[in-house]
Amino acid sequence: MGKGISGKPVVGVDLGGTKILAGVVAADGQILGMAKRATKPEGGPEVVVARIVKTVRKAVEAAKLDMSDIAAVASGAPGPLDPDQGIIWNAPNLAGWENFPLADRLSERLEMPVCIENDVNLGTLGEYALGAGRGARDVVGIFVGTGIGGGLILDGVLRQGFRKAAAEIGHMIVLADGPACGCGNRGCVEAVASRTAIERDILAGIDAGRESLIPAIMQRDSRDRLTSGALAEAFRGNDPLVTEVIGKAQFYLGLLVASVVNFVDPEVVIFGGGVTEALGEDFLAPIRRVAYQCFINKRGAEQVKIVLAQLGDNAVLLGAAVLARRRLGKDGA
Amino acid sequence: MGKGISGKPVVGVDLGGTKILAGVVAADGQILGMAKRATKPEGGPEVVVARIVKTVRKAVEAAKLDMSDIAAVASGAPGPLDPDQGIIWNAPNLAGWENFPLADRLSERLEMPVCIENDVNLGTLGEYALGAGRGARDVVGIFVGTGIGGGLILDGVLRQGFRKAAAEIGHMIVLADGPACGCGNRGCVEAVASRTAIERDILAGIDAGRESLIPAIMQRDSRDRLTSGALAEAFRGNDPLVTEVIGKAQFYLGLLVASVVNFVDPEVVIFGGGVTEALGEDFLAPIRRVAYQCFINKRGAEQVKIVLAQLGDNAVLLGAAVLARRRLGKDGA
Repeated sequence: MGKGISGKPVVGVDLGGTKILAGVVAADGQILGMAKRATKPEGGPEVVVARIVKTVRKAVEAAKLDMSDIAAVASGAPGPLDPDQGIIWNAPNLAGWENFPLADRLSERLEMPVCIENDVNLGTLGEYALGAGRGARDVVGIFVGTGIGGGLILDGVLRQGFRKAAAEIGHMIVLADGPACGCGNRGCVEAVASRTAIERDILAGIDAGRESLIPAIMQRDSRDRLTSGALAEAFRGNDPLVTEVIGKAQFYLGLLVASVVNFVDPEVVIFGGGVTEALGEDFLAPIRRVAYQCFINKRGAEQVKIVLAQLGDNAVLLGAAVLARRRLGKDGA
Repeated sequence: MGKGISGKPVVGVDLGGTKILAGVVAADGQILGMAKRATKPEGGPEVVVARIVKTVRKAVEAAKLDMSDIAAVASGAPGPLDPDQGIIWNAPNLAGWENFPLADRLSERLEMPVCIENDVNLGTLGEYALGAGRGARDVVGIFVGTGIGGGLILDGVLRQGFRKAAAEIGHMIVLADGPACGCGNRGCVEAVASRTAIERDILAGIDAGRESLIPAIMQRDSRDRLTSGALAEAFRGNDPLVTEVIGKAQFYLGLLVASVVNFVDPEVVIFGGGVTEALGEDFLAPIRRVAYQCFINKRGAEQVKIVLAQLGDNAVLLGAAVLARRRLGKDGA
């Protein structure tokens, strides 16, 4: 390390539908400087590319460095995408991008190597290398928010899949013929345990006349959507409807973990995402209990860790930095 | 290859609760000679070891070879087991073996390198290398019989798991709160789609007064269990109860494939096992239809092949031969 090119900082980017987050990351995983900017996807891909470039430059400035100090850039992006070609196949969150060569466009503008990868995969890679999965060989990441996303690292290798479509954990089916999912199928874990599913069931309960703290919280906050914060407030206030609906989600997530463990037997399962972050260990404990109960192989069950993510909003950009460094090493750049 | 040690034949063994099957396998995967013998597990592990040794020698004889022509032996065994240490941790099918060092015992008696692996993993490895998965990088094996077993090969690597407990596909949960499974949980795919589950539902239908060909077939064959053969006969005879119950199993197996594909995105999914073999393509077609429908990522969906196993009863011993050869290569023996 030190002054060699492998010791140079890289920039990790988290490109989302609403905001772009960039961080300059040292070889040891320390964040040296960050910047943030709205995505404004309505302007189309070239406008977003310009905004990413600006955000990267701002982060480098914040780190008190020069662009020539940076070895490479990597960006997480909503998919599906082709990480090898650096092309976004299709991103509904980005005003319908289709077959956009994001890596090449950024590389031309930034004049350095750029690679891209699915954002949830990078969140998992970040936790694996620098967060809750440090020291483990296998990590399954489960991110519970508006939807449920996942990432899969086995023996240190990020599983991309034969069609670059792996780790769509939210669409593993836990309740055959269950509630309709946004994907068109039924009983996906996303349809029974995401914030969207939790909100659907809480609002149905309220519509049916159940008492709850939720209407007052939403009115006070002038929100027409149920945020993770409001959910957490009602959950901590022991709201019976909220506790019941979240309890159901926890049960299904426990079954999901059991399915995942019975199938790939990983070392660590990491829970992140907005709902998990807002509710914390109180959310995770019952999930863990159900999961352990349903491991088919009980030998060494307690060695399989089921833990909270540690990197919060920085997981994706840190994972991007890890990816950039791995690619640099591989390509000998 | 040719006359070097890597070109020598190996012996693959399939150790089951009722029979031992051994085959001498050439470097190109051809079976040169086979032998079969009852397991007689009631005699305890040392008796079974002696019977395996005899079966191996008979297979070598059948191949018109001498034991000195054989480079190594590998055996599939019911688990759970430790493939690295060669120890059977626990095998209910083998009169309750506990922590038995099968590989070492066989190696002492056969005077050559011996390794062991979970039988369903080897069945999958056999299909990967020599059967329906030839040429693919990833294979998921799903074996539907009395129970449902599985194997997982990703990028050519057999996934054993952090606790050597991977690929327990039968205990992925597809129907939360569904029927009780032999493992103590509910809604595992084994509890809704194995021959045991199919038999349970057919017999319940008959008990409830539904008409079916099954009672006459079982009486004719003097059987008190529903065999795969009887199931196939009634299925081909368009027995409405059997068609309905198998249809349900096919639906759940389709959801299982979707969960597996949405999670690891493999190149090939191979269906084997007694039920699959007896029913053939008529069993697989509806599973395939449900599965494709539930892939979250439709891009290139038809490139993910869902196919019948090709090696039948020889899958495990052929997989064992592949493993023996891989180990020889690795250890340079």
